[in-house]
Amino acid sequence: MSAPLKVAVLGASGRMGAEAVKAVDAATDMELVAALGRGDKLEAILEAGATHVVDLSVPASTEDNVRFAVTHGLHAVVGTTGWDDAKRESLTNLLAENPGTGVLIAPNFALGSVLASAFAATAARYFESVEIIELHHPNKVDAPSGTAVRTAELIAAERAAAGVAASPDATETQLDGARGAVVDGIHVHSVRLRGLVAHQEVLLGGEGEQLTLRHDSYDRASFMPGVLLGLRTVASRPGLTYGLDGYLELGR
Amino acid sequence: MSAPLKVAVLGASGRMGAEAVKAVDAATDMELVAALGRGDKLEAILEAGATHVVDLSVPASTEDNVRFAVTHGLHAVVGTTGWDDAKRESLTNLLAENPGTGVLIAPNFALGSVLASAFAATAARYFESVEIIELHHPNKVDAPSGTAVRTAELIAAERAAAGVAASPDATETQLDGARGAVVDGIHVHSVRLRGLVAHQEVLLGGEGEQLTLRHDSYDRASFMPGVLLGLRTVASRPGLTYGLDGYLELGR
Amino acid sequence: MSAPLKVAVLGASGRMGAEAVKAVDAATDMELVAALGRGDKLEAILEAGATHVVDLSVPASTEDNVRFAVTHGLHAVVGTTGWDDAKRESLTNLLAENPGTGVLIAPNFALGSVLASAFAATAARYFESVEIIELHHPNKVDAPSGTAVRTAELIAAERAAAGVAASPDATETQLDGARGAVVDGIHVHSVRLRGLVAHQEVLLGGEGEQLTLRHDSYDRASFMPGVLLGLRTVASRPGLTYGLDGYLELGR
Amino acid sequence: MSAPLKVAVLGASGRMGAEAVKAVDAATDMELVAALGRGDKLEAILEAGATHVVDLSVPASTEDNVRFAVTHGLHAVVGTTGWDDAKRESLTNLLAENPGTGVLIAPNFALGSVLASAFAATAARYFESVEIIELHHPNKVDAPSGTAVRTAELIAAERAAAGVAASPDATETQLDGARGAVVDGIHVHSVRLRGLVAHQEVLLGGEGEQLTLRHDSYDRASFMPGVLLGLRTVASRPGLTYGLDGYLELGR
Repeated sequence: MSAPLKVAVLGASGRMGAEAVKAVDAATDMELVAALGRGDKLEAILEAGATHVVDLSVPASTEDNVRFAVTHGLHAVVGTTGWDDAKRESLTNLLAENPGTGVLIAPNFALGSVLASAFAATAARYFESVEIIELHHPNKVDAPSGTAVRTAELIAAERAAAGVAASPDATETQLDGARGAVVDGIHVHSVRLRGLVAHQEVLLGGEGEQLTLRHDSYDRASFMPGVLLGLRTVASRPGLTYGLDGYLELGR
Repeated sequence: MSAPLKVAVLGASGRMGAEAVKAVDAATDMELVAALGRGDKLEAILEAGATHVVDLSVPASTEDNVRFAVTHGLHAVVGTTGWDDAKRESLTNLLAENPGTGVLIAPNFALGSVLASAFAATAARYFESVEIIELHHPNKVDAPSGTAVRTAELIAAERAAAGVAASPDATETQLDGARGAVVDGIHVHSVRLRGLVAHQEVLLGGEGEQLTLRHDSYDRASFMPGVLLGLRTVASRPGLTYGLDGYLELGR
Repeated sequence: MSAPLKVAVLGASGRMGAEAVKAVDAATDMELVAALGRGDKLEAILEAGATHVVDLSVPASTEDNVRFAVTHGLHAVVGTTGWDDAKRESLTNLLAENPGTGVLIAPNFALGSVLASAFAATAARYFESVEIIELHHPNKVDAPSGTAVRTAELIAAERAAAGVAASPDATETQLDGARGAVVDGIHVHSVRLRGLVAHQEVLLGGEGEQLTLRHDSYDRASFMPGVLLGLRTVASRPGLTYGLDGYLELGR
Repeated sequence: MSAPLKVAVLGASGRMGAEAVKAVDAATDMELVAALGRGDKLEAILEAGATHVVDLSVPASTEDNVRFAVTHGLHAVVGTTGWDDAKRESLTNLLAENPGTGVLIAPNFALGSVLASAFAATAARYFESVEIIELHHPNKVDAPSGTAVRTAELIAAERAAAGVAASPDATETQLDGARGAVVDGIHVHSVRLRGLVAHQEVLLGGEGEQLTLRHDSYDRASFMPGVLLGLRTVASRPGLTYGLDGYLELGR
């Protein structure tokens, strides 16, 4: 067995960061060498001998954190939001100056959710009909969920590329809203129900058959296997990878 | 074992009527004594010695058919649409003159669908949240389905009677239609997918738990157990019963 | 609005008891007047002026607790296990001496679970086939779950009473265990999966249709609405009621 | 638009063959030039000018049919069973002598089923737990279904290759059969229910999340999109391909 990865967690006092501290600490192939919160100096990472960084801080500091890591040859796994095109391009340039260093920026670390989206996009090429149902707790303020919108966009792009026609729909009269929202031609329905957390179903239908891909997310803990997978893989993937699916073997 | 029921089917050349002919014929406790189509004379029922009538004809003839049956003391199970309040009241009066004769008029004979609606109404008193998803083939022209609208109305009435507050919903921003249609305060979502037939889910949620009532209808054959149950019960229920749920033991 | 119920929680230091303390405290129509743990004297209930007691203690003390409450004319809602036939009969006798006092002993306070079981029993009279799938976390040591066994027994009893034949099954060759466990003639399948909590599906099938009743339990908090419903109802139901379903309006 | 494919259907009088005749006839990019049943001479294919053959005949004649097609440079899509290793190896040799000719032999043409199996195998590398539930009509004589057994084998092979541990299971006491059949270490549950056709669910669970892949097959018609996809692709894939998944783009 190889030496454990030496991991520093940035944003360790946030809720996700605290989960990451626990997960890294529990992983037998990793060593938690530093856990930095707001105001802690980044140099502490170097002093602790970290080779890998997990950034789960805030949009205002994530860019500085990651650039600091890359400049010092540390690999980084990043779950903080705020990485727009300009910031990612700038980071790509910095990585070109530090060959051998890898960074993963992932908007979503839940393996099941990432897999479900990828499978949905693949399957959407082969089915006549596709719709999305997302279900969340009733305190959510936006509808549809961001994940559902991205899944719809991904599906629409695959269907366009494969030349698949729009899903058939003979609806002539409807109560306002019955057929859901339409995102890039894909119907999306948002359910809000006490007791739920975060759930999504992609329904695909063809003559005489149906394929359903459902993901249920019950707990923030579901992100940790993806974070650990990122840490175990990032050193072997120099440069910038965007999206955890880039690290998954989706075909055969 | 008692003597088989002597059953006449009216509207026997229609699709539902043809199914009923087969179902009555196959039932060991029934005897199919007549099967009348368009243009056949109603007197044939009497000549055949029928004691029970199944009417699956068309709105234009169902009232004449049923009144003829009742006048001659035959029990009737009716699946034809078009029985508005005035026609039902008039029939109730006719039945009062023929005590001992029973009529069942049912807008829906699928046992599973009738049970699911009744259960949904019962459960809706006890849960904080409730929403409906109905899923049909893409050739359906209206949304939501009539069954979903009736289920929503039934649920809303039960919640109002029990003093249950509206389902919680913190949605502030939504894409048009994301949260579905709203029927008497209940959110209803309509999915259209190739390969499907007719399906409905009622989702009920409370703190830490969810109850889901799902009905799948694959085939017109699903109406026949309800028709047979109606035939076996109608003689013991003089007067007019509206809705198959009136014949089901829903409590304990 | 009437005066709030004055409630004492027994077993308040246990996990369920602690939930009950929170739930009673949060209910606007109740006042938490006492919360007793191990070793506390029962007289404190009287001193606090309680009119209602929730017992979520341990099998060794629940009988003393409830008999004490009844003797002093307090209504009791009981979730502790261990109430065998002899203890319940003895309690019934004590209640006869204290007319006007009510006790509810409920093996399960999750409204959704109680409703799902009741609905399953009702529906099982009307469908040709019925099977049960229960799904739990992988740390569970027994299979099937106690709830699934009780649901199967309840279903079997209803089908026997209604004269329903056994579910059809043409299986000739099977891998050992493929068709599940058989409880009173009902097939029960136990799934164990990381990430799950406690879930159950009753599947009912007839010609051309299927009815599915699913209950998902995510959290101990799901028991509290049932406990509060019990507290609000118990004073109007003198004597002993066994099972929360006795307080629910299941028919129409 | 290119010229339509000239397709001959072999086994056209069987149930699957009859569906294929209808599907090829309805496809705007194909021309049905021959439909052969039992006893018809294979030379008719050549006389009709076919460039593609669909073989849906019987095990006793499929090898002769396909070898005849290959020898004459016709591409073949084959759904008949009975192609053991020896026959496939012999066909591979014949194809080597006819470069440019393609043959697809597929045990399953339902796109949704093939995709669900492939997705299940991929996802099984990333989840701690996995189990299979298959649900069929009650006239089925074997349990589990062949598809479920193959899915379990596929999943087990992927998990072994990826070094994934067995699904956790703390079961100590169980009623016989409760935990299902075990195929290569994967638990498989078989439900039999009136009203169902052929359905399968693969459930994958990790800390705080669940992924469910469900396929519903309602009708033999569900095989035809796969047959047509095979016909459209086979000319571009010289040699022998086994399994429709070989023609699907499963990754990105």
